[in-house]
Amino acid sequence: MHLPITQRSINCLALALFGAALVAYGKQRDPLPSWTEGPNKASIIEFVETVTTPGSPKFVPESRRIAAIDNDGTLWTEQPLYFQALYLLQRIKEIAPEHPEWKTKEPFASVLQGNLKKALSGGEKALLEMTLATHAGLTEDEFSDSVRRFLSSARHPTTGHLLTDMVYQPMLELLDFLKANNFKVFIVSGGGIEFVRIFSENLYGIPPERVVGSSLDAKYEFRDGQPVIVKQASIDLIDDHAGKPVGIHRYIGRRPILAIGNSDGDFEMLEYVTTGDGPRLGMIIHHDDPEREFAYDRDSSIGRSARVLDEGPQRGWKIISMQSDWKVIHPEEKK
Amino acid sequence: MHLPITQRSINCLALALFGAALVAYGKQRDPLPSWTEGPNKASIIEFVETVTTPGSPKFVPESRRIAAIDNDGTLWTEQPLYFQALYLLQRIKEIAPEHPEWKTKEPFASVLQGNLKKALSGGEKALLEMTLATHAGLTEDEFSDSVRRFLSSARHPTTGHLLTDMVYQPMLELLDFLKANNFKVFIVSGGGIEFVRIFSENLYGIPPERVVGSSLDAKYEFRDGQPVIVKQASIDLIDDHAGKPVGIHRYIGRRPILAIGNSDGDFEMLEYVTTGDGPRLGMIIHHDDPEREFAYDRDSSIGRSARVLDEGPQRGWKIISMQSDWKVIHPEEKK
Repeated sequence: MHLPITQRSINCLALALFGAALVAYGKQRDPLPSWTEGPNKASIIEFVETVTTPGSPKFVPESRRIAAIDNDGTLWTEQPLYFQALYLLQRIKEIAPEHPEWKTKEPFASVLQGNLKKALSGGEKALLEMTLATHAGLTEDEFSDSVRRFLSSARHPTTGHLLTDMVYQPMLELLDFLKANNFKVFIVSGGGIEFVRIFSENLYGIPPERVVGSSLDAKYEFRDGQPVIVKQASIDLIDDHAGKPVGIHRYIGRRPILAIGNSDGDFEMLEYVTTGDGPRLGMIIHHDDPEREFAYDRDSSIGRSARVLDEGPQRGWKIISMQSDWKVIHPEEKK
Repeated sequence: MHLPITQRSINCLALALFGAALVAYGKQRDPLPSWTEGPNKASIIEFVETVTTPGSPKFVPESRRIAAIDNDGTLWTEQPLYFQALYLLQRIKEIAPEHPEWKTKEPFASVLQGNLKKALSGGEKALLEMTLATHAGLTEDEFSDSVRRFLSSARHPTTGHLLTDMVYQPMLELLDFLKANNFKVFIVSGGGIEFVRIFSENLYGIPPERVVGSSLDAKYEFRDGQPVIVKQASIDLIDDHAGKPVGIHRYIGRRPILAIGNSDGDFEMLEYVTTGDGPRLGMIIHHDDPEREFAYDRDSSIGRSARVLDEGPQRGWKIISMQSDWKVIHPEEKK
């Protein structure tokens, strides 16, 4: 059969070539443009290529390509105060009229007097007390409406940016890179699971069911004849330190192969993840950029990182320097 | 430009037509061939079409197309005993040498004497006691290995089939239909979350992180210098009755739009799901087929269903008759 070369068959061929070119372009394009060329960026790309190359002895099937990523200080800023603490403070002021006893009761009294330093001097315990007092009794819808309202306008105390703009551009690129390589990406946060679930899909493209976090107990009740879930004044899970592997076990049910954190609260998560069989990658984001973000580690009350920096390197964890590994910090720097 | 009709362009056209035909065929092909034509099957198909039709006032975006489906008695058989109870009984026999005290201690003594009826006369409490005694202290890997070994050969006491063959063919088709329409399908089981997670991906194509179930507390520990998760002898969540909406809230974080169950333990889940805003579908599988499966409802100690049958219809829940709505029960009937 003679098949003459016609205009249509040339069109067909051109289309096929264009498609192949697109694929090749996609493979060659830098997936992490905000990361400085160097050993850390190379480690990430090599790890992803290794576990996704069929036939490679280190190939990992898609169902086991699970990544566990901390939120505060890893995906967005956590200084000078966890953003959920900013929400707590605003909510205390909002509902103070219903709690006249707070005028003389710490840490609430200090919050209402505007003395944040004193209010937070009680550390995690004070934060927890404020969480229970402000969250308990809310239905799931009331809580999410309240957080949504807060996030729609809340601004960062020192930069003045919307809190939701304080995400890290290099981490957004890394999330996209992992997702494009069929990783299941989970947030594993010390913060409240319901708080993070409100914005995880919009900010990170991570749906609520892929968020692991701290939680209060919950109860099935009726309000105005309608069934609702109500938050209780008791702790279900503190998803920090040894609670992170427990949270991973509870919510994910399989040991991830990649973990990223920034503080000692992430130590056990990285330990659990990187001691499993097969290829593993652990990374610690080091906040060493006082110009563009914040510089803190072993002396900080928020996001304290000492053990992860001391023991991380000998465990093979990559220490990511925000100053030298990241070309930009927040998305707005790209403008 | 003159474009002559050539063999190649005819080939192109034929291919395009074939593609279009395939799409049309896909749309017209019966997605639920094991379901009898009738109002129940029509309700399912109409519901899925309604929520997936863009522009429809009842359109539901993919992120909110969440289905919550019970396991025992809904996706596979639960008579004459929950399959996890069969596992428990075998495990008690396996580890009895390490527990000489069981020879005289109920319900263990009766299990070891082969008197199942007496062993189970303590109902849920006895099952729970056996669960704690046999599961606590196991690492997550030890437990999953043990369940895998059991399921690889365990057979049903009356049919002699592998337990893993006792799934319901019509439900497998429904799972596929929902997934093809971009539903996120979750199992919400009264059974153990870790038990169900072992087989959910193989049997139902549902990954472990989409399984909600009952659980024991867990702890992060070291065994032989390696970090592991160890099951504790205390209850974390009983995912049954009012625990099902709580489990959904905990693991999924959003109210599903579709729920399927078979027993009174599913009542609150269906209530929670079907009282939300927008289109909702609730279904109860009624075990009324003594020939091909089992017939039981209000008088059964396992999978008791009275309230769901009494109140379901007035709540708009569809009562699925296994006898008349399902052409086949288990996949092997198709042979």
